[in-house]
Amino acid sequence: MTAYAELEIRFKRLNLVREAAGVLQWDMETLMPTGGAAARTEQLATLRVLAHQMLTDPALGDLLANAEREPGLTPWQTANLNEMKHEWRHATCLPADLVEARSRAESECELRWRTARPANDFRGLLPLLQRVLDLVRETAKIKAAAFGLSPYDTLLDEYEPGGRSAEITPLFDSLAAFLPGFIDAAIESQARHPKATRPAGPFPAAKQQALARRLMEAVGFDFAHGRLDTSLHPFCGGVPDDVRLTTRWNEADFMPGLMGVLHETGHAMYERGLPVEWRHQPVGHARGMSVHESQSLLVEMQACRSREFIAWLGPLAAEAFGAGGGPAWEVENLYRIYTKVERGLIRVDADEATYPAHVILRYRLERALVAGDLKLADLPGAWAEGMKQLVGIVPPDDRDGCLQDIHWPGGSWGYFPTYTLGAMTAAQLFDAARRARPEIPQALGRGDFAPLMAWLRENVHGKGSLVPTRDLLVAATGRPLDPEIYKRHLKTRYLN
Amino acid sequence: MTAYAELEIRFKRLNLVREAAGVLQWDMETLMPTGGAAARTEQLATLRVLAHQMLTDPALGDLLANAEREPGLTPWQTANLNEMKHEWRHATCLPADLVEARSRAESECELRWRTARPANDFRGLLPLLQRVLDLVRETAKIKAAAFGLSPYDTLLDEYEPGGRSAEITPLFDSLAAFLPGFIDAAIESQARHPKATRPAGPFPAAKQQALARRLMEAVGFDFAHGRLDTSLHPFCGGVPDDVRLTTRWNEADFMPGLMGVLHETGHAMYERGLPVEWRHQPVGHARGMSVHESQSLLVEMQACRSREFIAWLGPLAAEAFGAGGGPAWEVENLYRIYTKVERGLIRVDADEATYPAHVILRYRLERALVAGDLKLADLPGAWAEGMKQLVGIVPPDDRDGCLQDIHWPGGSWGYFPTYTLGAMTAAQLFDAARRARPEIPQALGRGDFAPLMAWLRENVHGKGSLVPTRDLLVAATGRPLDPEIYKRHLKTRYLN
Repeated sequence: MTAYAELEIRFKRLNLVREAAGVLQWDMETLMPTGGAAARTEQLATLRVLAHQMLTDPALGDLLANAEREPGLTPWQTANLNEMKHEWRHATCLPADLVEARSRAESECELRWRTARPANDFRGLLPLLQRVLDLVRETAKIKAAAFGLSPYDTLLDEYEPGGRSAEITPLFDSLAAFLPGFIDAAIESQARHPKATRPAGPFPAAKQQALARRLMEAVGFDFAHGRLDTSLHPFCGGVPDDVRLTTRWNEADFMPGLMGVLHETGHAMYERGLPVEWRHQPVGHARGMSVHESQSLLVEMQACRSREFIAWLGPLAAEAFGAGGGPAWEVENLYRIYTKVERGLIRVDADEATYPAHVILRYRLERALVAGDLKLADLPGAWAEGMKQLVGIVPPDDRDGCLQDIHWPGGSWGYFPTYTLGAMTAAQLFDAARRARPEIPQALGRGDFAPLMAWLRENVHGKGSLVPTRDLLVAATGRPLDPEIYKRHLKTRYLN
Repeated sequence: MTAYAELEIRFKRLNLVREAAGVLQWDMETLMPTGGAAARTEQLATLRVLAHQMLTDPALGDLLANAEREPGLTPWQTANLNEMKHEWRHATCLPADLVEARSRAESECELRWRTARPANDFRGLLPLLQRVLDLVRETAKIKAAAFGLSPYDTLLDEYEPGGRSAEITPLFDSLAAFLPGFIDAAIESQARHPKATRPAGPFPAAKQQALARRLMEAVGFDFAHGRLDTSLHPFCGGVPDDVRLTTRWNEADFMPGLMGVLHETGHAMYERGLPVEWRHQPVGHARGMSVHESQSLLVEMQACRSREFIAWLGPLAAEAFGAGGGPAWEVENLYRIYTKVERGLIRVDADEATYPAHVILRYRLERALVAGDLKLADLPGAWAEGMKQLVGIVPPDDRDGCLQDIHWPGGSWGYFPTYTLGAMTAAQLFDAARRARPEIPQALGRGDFAPLMAWLRENVHGKGSLVPTRDLLVAATGRPLDPEIYKRHLKTRYLN
């Protein structure tokens, strides 16, 4: 057996253990009774330890080195080997006690955050968050020396392989210069239109679910390969051949829930469309978090908040809820609700236009914290200042300010930029798709996603991790990430 | 660290991997979309290979030998070490290629059985079943040499540790001599009573479920530590702190479904009551399959088919289904339905009185097949002859004869006797419980299981695998398994 062939066997087994953990995680967040938590935590920890042991097995280094010298690998095999090496380097370059200390500190900090946020207690969280940040910085420093990258870029590289702040910063600076004026203009423009009227509920969860399933099927979701369930925080879990989406139903307002389902369906379609022949290999996985987010935002923001799609959705929703009609159900009214711009304090509630401002703030702050240019104790002040500058409002307290996100307490440093990189990528891909297949908007007006999905399968989903994100985008759209396309999309939608 | 302490760490990890597999298995049989089957099969196979590797790790043999020489182990630790050795011996005494060949042959045969049974095609199944039997016999022969047991007893020992046919055969012979005459007498006795009337449906699944949950709670099931879902074949899965029961609902007749739930609840109460401080160790697991089955049958057959319990259940069920009342809902009528004796061809549909006859037939046949005294080709004839003698009817074909059970095609040889050992154990434990706590029947008449469950917790559940099955029974009831107690129960219920 060649070294490469043995690596495929080992990474397949590793992937299957991770898949098992993924299903257990989904169960934990959807169905598990509260009393099962302790056992489940131990089951998951055991599977993670096993996966880590597989990835740090001393034999793996030799196998990777030997496989590199083996002739005749196909481009997919070569890319697969590169992805293996990427995972292996991240896993092996750290001392085991640092990994364990970080894992423990993050669990403790996240647990504390769950009470500190509602209590508006940044001071109380500070020592635990400082411990997390110290260990994150130590991790980044070791990886920086090993990989020849800046410390922050090594963190980013875990979520966005190949992502570099030297490329992201100018993109975000360009957006940051654009957004405040754009947000002002969008709000002014909308003030000239009649005020939107929300359809009156209640909207029974069962009816919302039936409608959501109908929409998922329209997008192309196959219920023989997945499920829709409810959970506290919507997510897309499971495995590519059994994708588990979750959402939550608000019986007073069906509109956010429906878009939430469409967002997760975008993630699901990416997972479902990954290359079947590489199912359990690293090259068969999603390219990175920004491409993943681009697929959810492409469905939710680009396709499903288009006037064409809402013209199809409106009557369908009115019928699903047995609404006789009336001004609230008119297409222009629904479109206005779905494209409303408002300054808000909370990232997860933000609309398409203000969301990137929230992300850029976090990107700038976490870079400064990791670099040591900002002290954690000064975070609340820096947050308020950044909010004022980027979003135009200031939080009255830390609960709705720097305590709002789970990411930093939970150890996800370097994750935030992928949200806005995803939004920009979505705009650029949708633009290219419409140029390649001009029938897309009309098809969406019939609830027909087939032309759009066919293009995405060919240009994004089916590529897995064959090429770097940048090359994927250039091949699909003719150029690297271009903030002007994203700005054009925002201006077209919000300034008309 | 002592060898014993290291063994506890290793067996805990092994148990957690098995628990993870258990949750995945539950999901597969309840919620998984069909398209997830291939990935799930591979996930489960991977976890099983990992568990097998842990159990056959060469270091384990030395650790077990060293731990035996370590002084100062408590009785629980000593018992735990014995259980570890029991598992390890079963896992390591076989060559890996035999284990793999058997696993493959069983999967193929079981798959073929799924079509062969409805097609009544015993001839078609024969070669695959012969292959399974050959490999089972080879397994048993190797284990017999290693353990100093008869080949059949080594198979039995996997499901019923310490179970020996030299003890079971006289018990079953005594029952076999009793049952044909008893079944005749019971049927004659019931013919003298008025014919029972089935309550008229339909019985909506949601209402059956609400009633079933109420009954589960009456038995003592805690929904913070478990769930009730639906599956094709009812079972009790999950883990002790998160027990997952399943059932199926027949909207035309609620009565079998309800007893099915109570049966599985008996299994669940055992799992829930296992000693918490030994959660992830072998000594903390259920004692064996006959004790497990005794707990389900104790709840279903002994407690819930008692006249006292049905007197409580009847009005509750009538109310749950909004039935105004009438003769079908009278307690004596419901009791008659729940204790009806009928000769039938199918084991899983058999009533309490005829069920042991079905089991004894299978026990005799599988022993003869493993010993080589019966050829597989002659099974249909031997089946018909045994059915005639034990149950009093002969199947018209193999579909309702020797093809009806999944056990032999699936490789579960030596499992069948545990059903009837469980029924006998249930009768004996219930008898002892009532003598120790005479208030039990009256409490059941109020839907109050607390006195019964308290006795079971103390005498059965909380013991885990601390002592052998026989000692457990002697400690709880004053004597080893006694067929006369079981016969007395049957005569009291069916010949009055």
